Order: sequence, then C-alpha cells, then structure tokens
Amino acid sequence: MRIAIKDAWIITQNENRQILRGDILIEDGVIKEVGKVSSDADEEIYSHGDIVLPGLINTHTHVSMAILKGVADDVSFPDFLSKVFSIDAQRTPEDIYAGTQLGCLEMIRSGTTTFVDLYYAEDVIAKATEEMGLRAILCWAVLDEEFTTQKCRPLDNCRHFCESIDQEKSRILPGVGLQGVYVCSKETFLEAKEYADEKGLLLHFHLSETRKEVNDHRKKTGMRPSEYLDKIGFLGKNCLAAHACWLTLNEVRILAKSKTSVSTCPVSNMKLATGGVAPIPEMRKEGVNVSIGTDSSTTNNSLDMFGEMKTLSLLQKSSRWDPTVLSAQEILDFATIGGAFAIGLDRMIGSIEPSKRADIVILDGMAPNLSPIRRETLISNVVYSSSQANVKTVICDGQILMKDWEIKRIDEIAVLNRATEAARKLFSE
Amino acid sequence: MRIAIKDAWIITQNENRQILRGDILIEDGVIKEVGKVSSDADEEIYSHGDIVLPGLINTHTHVSMAILKGVADDVSFPDFLSKVFSIDAQRTPEDIYAGTQLGCLEMIRSGTTTFVDLYYAEDVIAKATEEMGLRAILCWAVLDEEFTTQKCRPLDNCRHFCESIDQEKSRILPGVGLQGVYVCSKETFLEAKEYADEKGLLLHFHLSETRKEVNDHRKKTGMRPSEYLDKIGFLGKNCLAAHACWLTLNEVRILAKSKTSVSTCPVSNMKLATGGVAPIPEMRKEGVNVSIGTDSSTTNNSLDMFGEMKTLSLLQKSSRWDPTVLSAQEILDFATIGGAFAIGLDRMIGSIEPSKRADIVILDGMAPNLSPIRRETLISNVVYSSSQANVKTVICDGQILMKDWEIKRIDEIAVLNRATEAARKLFSE
Repeated sequence: MRIAIKDAWIITQNENRQILRGDILIEDGVIKEVGKVSSDADEEIYSHGDIVLPGLINTHTHVSMAILKGVADDVSFPDFLSKVFSIDAQRTPEDIYAGTQLGCLEMIRSGTTTFVDLYYAEDVIAKATEEMGLRAILCWAVLDEEFTTQKCRPLDNCRHFCESIDQEKSRILPGVGLQGVYVCSKETFLEAKEYADEKGLLLHFHLSETRKEVNDHRKKTGMRPSEYLDKIGFLGKNCLAAHACWLTLNEVRILAKSKTSVSTCPVSNMKLATGGVAPIPEMRKEGVNVSIGTDSSTTNNSLDMFGEMKTLSLLQKSSRWDPTVLSAQEILDFATIGGAFAIGLDRMIGSIEPSKRADIVILDGMAPNLSPIRRETLISNVVYSSSQANVKTVICDGQILMKDWEIKRIDEIAVLNRATEAARKLFSE
Repeated sequence: MRIAIKDAWIITQNENRQILRGDILIEDGVIKEVGKVSSDADEEIYSHGDIVLPGLINTHTHVSMAILKGVADDVSFPDFLSKVFSIDAQRTPEDIYAGTQLGCLEMIRSGTTTFVDLYYAEDVIAKATEEMGLRAILCWAVLDEEFTTQKCRPLDNCRHFCESIDQEKSRILPGVGLQGVYVCSKETFLEAKEYADEKGLLLHFHLSETRKEVNDHRKKTGMRPSEYLDKIGFLGKNCLAAHACWLTLNEVRILAKSKTSVSTCPVSNMKLATGGVAPIPEMRKEGVNVSIGTDSSTTNNSLDMFGEMKTLSLLQKSSRWDPTVLSAQEILDFATIGGAFAIGLDRMIGSIEPSKRADIVILDGMAPNLSPIRRETLISNVVYSSSQANVKTVICDGQILMKDWEIKRIDEIAVLNRATEAARKLFSE
C-alpha cells in the first residue's frame, strides 16, 4: 500500500527543523520519500497548500476518563480528588472501553497519533485503542496494595498485562506506571523498576504535582521526591515524569543527570490551581528532555494538544514576565520529537523523515485562522493560531484514520452512542 | 423570513440561566419563541441534540490585524511594539479591508457574532464588516496629534466616521476609541467624552495593560490611570476599558462606582507577559461588569473566544492558587450577556430570549470533545472542552452566516485569497 501526500508545506521536525514544500510517499506504513515524489501511489492525498506535521504525541493522559469530563470543575483539590476517586471506584470494563474509544476519537480529531496512558485496566484500554488505530504506551498503574482498589497485587497485574501484549505486531506498547511517592513505597518503586529494566519498558509516574505532595514527602523522608527517587536508584533513561512542577534547581539537575524525561501538563496544573509552574527553561538549560501531556478529561477538560501547546507557551511566558521564554519551535519540538524521545521511540516516530513510521497530521491550508500562510510564520501559526478545527487528515502507522474530517475504519456514531450510554449508566447509579 | 431551530439544548443565558431542550423561532431577525415552536418556518435547522448559545461577543480586538498573525512572536515587549508599529504605518486601505474580512471569517468560524474594534481606518473596517454580516462597534482611535500618523486631527476623523454611519439601518455602530493615557492628554480624553456622551456612543480605551504604563503615568500625574480618569471626570457608563490588569482595589472600586465595564484579554496579556493579572474576582465582588476580548492577531494570535474563555479561567485560577475562582457559568456570562452589557446592547443581544435580535451559535452535539452531553455538565463542556471545531452554524441578526460549517453569503475562497495577496504585498515591501 503506497500513499502519496502531494504539494504541501511539510514541517519535517528533522534535525535541521526543515520546512519543505513538496510531497511525501508512504509505503506499508513507512515514510519512503520526503520532498519530490514522482512514483505512483495507490492513494493520493492532494494537499495543495496544506500544512503537514508529525502526529502529535501526548505523553500523559488517563484516556478512559474522557466520559467523565465536567464532573468535578471549579472545586477545591481535595473535593476534586474525592469526587473523581469515588467515580473511578464504580467504573466497569464497559465504560472504560467506551471512554477510551471516545478519548481516542477526540485525539484523532485533534491531531494526536500517540499517547501515554496511566491507569488500571490497561487491558481494556489496549483493546479499545488498538481498534481505534492509534499508537499508545499503556502504563498499568502500580501502587502499594494498601492504597489500591485493584484486585490482586498491582505489580502482578501490571506484569500480567505487559506479558499479554505482543509488541512485535502491535502499535500498542505496554509500560509500567507508578502512581507517585504518596502511595508507592521504596520497595514498590524498585520492584517496578527492576521489571521495567528487564523488559525494556517505559516507567511512567506522577512527580511533584502539588506542594502538599512535596511537603508530605519531605516530612516522611527528609528528601524532596526527585531527590528521593534518585537516592533509591529509581531514576533512569526509561523514566517519564508527569507534571514535575514543584522542583528545585537541584532536582532539575537530578532529572537531567539521570536522563529522566518530563511530561509537562500546563492546562491541568492551571485548572487545578496547584500553584507550581514546571521550570521548563531550567530543564532545557540543564538538558532535561521535555514533552507535553494533556492529563485527563476531568482536569483539562480536553485532550487537544494544540490547545496544550499554546497554553504551555502562555503559562511559561506569563509566569516569568518574559515573552521570549520558549519559542514556538521549542514548543512544537516538545509535542513531536521530544515526545518521541520521552517514550524511547525517537528513531521510529516524532518527525517526517525517510524510514520513520508514517504518523502524520495534515492541517487545512485554507483555514482563516491559519491564514495568511507564509513560510516565515508557519511554526508560529501552528503553535499559536491553530485549533483542532484545522486537523483535516490523520495518518497513524500508515493507516488513514481521518480524511477530510471524516473518520475512517471506525463507526464514529457507534463510539459516541456507546460513550453516552456508558455515562448514563455510570451517573444514574 | 422565519427560521426554526429544532430540538436542541438551548443555553439561554436569560436571567435565570435556564437550559432548555427545545426549539427557537426567529422572524425577521428577531427571536420570537424559545421552547416549543409549532408554527411553520421558511427554513428549518434540524439541531437534534446540538448545543445552542448566544453568539459570543468579543469586546476588544483590532480585527484588521488578522493578516499580521505571527509577525512578532516570542520577542520583548519593546521589540514587539516597534515591529508592529512599523508594519502598521505601511498599511493600505486594501490590506486593512482584506485583513478585516479575514478576521471576520475567523470570528464566524469560532462563534463570535459581535466584536468591538479599536483602530484607525474604521471606515474601511465598517465596509468590510458590513459585507461579512457581523455585528460590530467600531471605535476610531483618538490620540494626541503629536503621536499619530493619521492625517487630520484624530478626533475629527473619528467624528467624521461616526457621522457617516447610519445607525438605524446597520449592524455596525460607531464608537469613540482612545489609545490610552500614554498618548492622550486630558483635553483629548474630555473632548472625546463630550462627543461620545452627546451622541450616545461607546468610549473604548486601553487601560493599565503594562506596569510601565502605570508607573509612567504616576510619575507624570501622581495618580494611577483609573484614578486620573476618574479625577478628570472621564469615566462613566458608556466606558469600556480593555486589559485593566495593573489595578489596585481602589481603582477597581472607581471602575465599579463609575459603571465602567472591563474587557479582559487574558491570552494577549500572557503572551506579551506583561505580568499583571486582571483582578476579576475583585471586580465581580465590587460590581464591575466584565467581558472578554481576544485583542489582536499579533498578540494572541487567534480571534477564538472559546480559547479565550478557557484561558481566562485557567489564568484566574492558577494565579490565585484556587480552582474555585470563577465558575464556568461566570466565564460564559462574560462572553455573552456581560459583553452585551459592556457595549450597551444588553436589551438587544447577549441571551436567547423572545424579542432579542437573533445572534445565535449552534455547536455540534455529536462532537467527541463535547461528549457525553449531559445537562449537568453542559456549561462546563462549552467553556472548558469546546473548540471552534464544534461551531457548526452561526446566525447574526437573523441571517445565517454559516450552516453546517459552510460559509454563506460570502465567497470564503475570495476572502482568503485577498488576504494572502495583501500579506504578500505588505511583507514584500
């Protein structure tokens, strides 16, 4: 199967951050040519003047919570947690499945082709995601037994899930999730790490989201969370820390030295008003790899990476009183190649280059909110002006998931109806 | 001409903030019935399960700058000003016309039906806006002659413009703009006020956007800008102040007492990183009417009020470390009825009620990012989850400007091509 994308502005995100005007040839899911394509294709996507970029990578979410949007807004953080935890405890495999497909649909429509999930029931989420055609790293949430509602030992559940996934055949990769220092003992962290290292899996965890988390941990251990995780020998290059807001410069250096990546979640942090702003300029200066996550639909309440890119820029600039903090190009890097690096897939995805898998998003070149389209302002327009309305066509792993705003392969109405029905059941109880 | 909207969720924004499931009947531009409509219509908009809300009101922009998006990003505020002013000085009526139509198109596609503009050349902007079918209050920028590139005296230009508009027949209302305390003398303020009061026009001006503006004004007059404008007798109920970031509580009380409305511009303030956060909770407590503006495409870089509503909430919550600051309902109020009140049109627009003009936006009820749709979470979903992608149909003054994402009455391609050509000319020079 050969697909050609013709006559588009191509934001390659390759090493030189080249922007080309030309074509892309995809063969059996792999990008074969970028620039001028003369050979025939089975399917031609005429994209005259459209903007092509790598599929966006959302490095922190809890996708199945998509059916819960709006349930706990404008309330205090403790009230938020108690509301969401009480709903979480009532969830069934059916509504997790329905919520996952709804979330995947939202991500496709907003240009995300890969996401990192942290939840229990990743077996259900894997099935739903596989059907939707997205790429994902699904990290089963591990925590101490005393804090969980999971049946059986969470790490055993996680192992069982990871071993059930055939990594050779699938766009779905398993990962090891850790809820955070507030519910995970040293033994839990280290056992999880041992397993992840042995199997070559991602270790994905919440880190220093709230000031309370940091203060409580200091009282308990005398150390801040990153210092502690470093001290016990947990951190390493397969680590991806979500939030990472309340960090000292010393902690930023610890993350850099250990090659831990960060998934910053600006909308979630702002909406929950947790106060800390992730020190992204310091992270970049010290060499921490940065990526972007939306967090869940209960905190955000959206899985739209275009919104997330813009908000990240606004938050970083405004909190420093400095409009030069982070360029549009850096923000786009976090959402593409930075995300790919964070999950160890930078040789496979994150840019549009020959031999990479074809994860590609096409934005409408005739959208008023992106016009006028000029090479000089293209990256700015993508980061500061675009919206999910502009996402026209989405390809993941060489498969066309949406073409000209029409969802392919999946019955969109059935997904929406299933989500509505699942929400109805969940909230009537 | 009778238009019926059938079987939708109707967010009325009436006094009781009712949400109804039902129909709307529009006759000759006026809302006749809300709830159950049994009579026949010339055109029926079947909206089963869609979400209907009042057209959004953007109370501060410089619409014709839509062709300038991306020209001055990620630079210091002085660099930003010098770049934008130098481009502004080269502008022609042709590119102002083209930019205005582009901006109007972007606003239609993102659900705005009324905007307040502040610029010179409002005569050109009036013509372009009239053709696009939007409602607008166009405020000609008045400032001291020594600071302007306008030919003739700015206040004379403003008067001339205001008198050229036939207010009885048009959706276009003229207004008096004032650049701000940094370029307007006491005499300029008072002469403008006298004219506006005499003619019943809106007085729209920048206020306390930057700390420098406030400090410079204190050095010059011993007073902060709002104190000064109060002291000279300028403030009053036809006043609409944009930004209003760097205010003391005393100034908030001055605005409340004088019945001055505020247009808060969160994205612009954050992107330019001007530091001050408009004290919206204090404004509400003291009784200041609040509305929302996008500011221009050079600072934002978008005219999307859905993005603006969400960012306003995020900024207010995060800057106070308090997620309970401003509810979704309050934010929606600012963008609808608060906006209408700010421009003196609250008896005409801003809510969906019999006898009001039909300025109406229909959001897609089958959008994954708004699903599941439940009455309990409808306002939250509109404010926190929606995007311009969801704006399906837009009616202004009873005229259908967009139906099922298709622009009516206007040749969209021609507008886009004209904008591209205008930008090409402007930036080749």
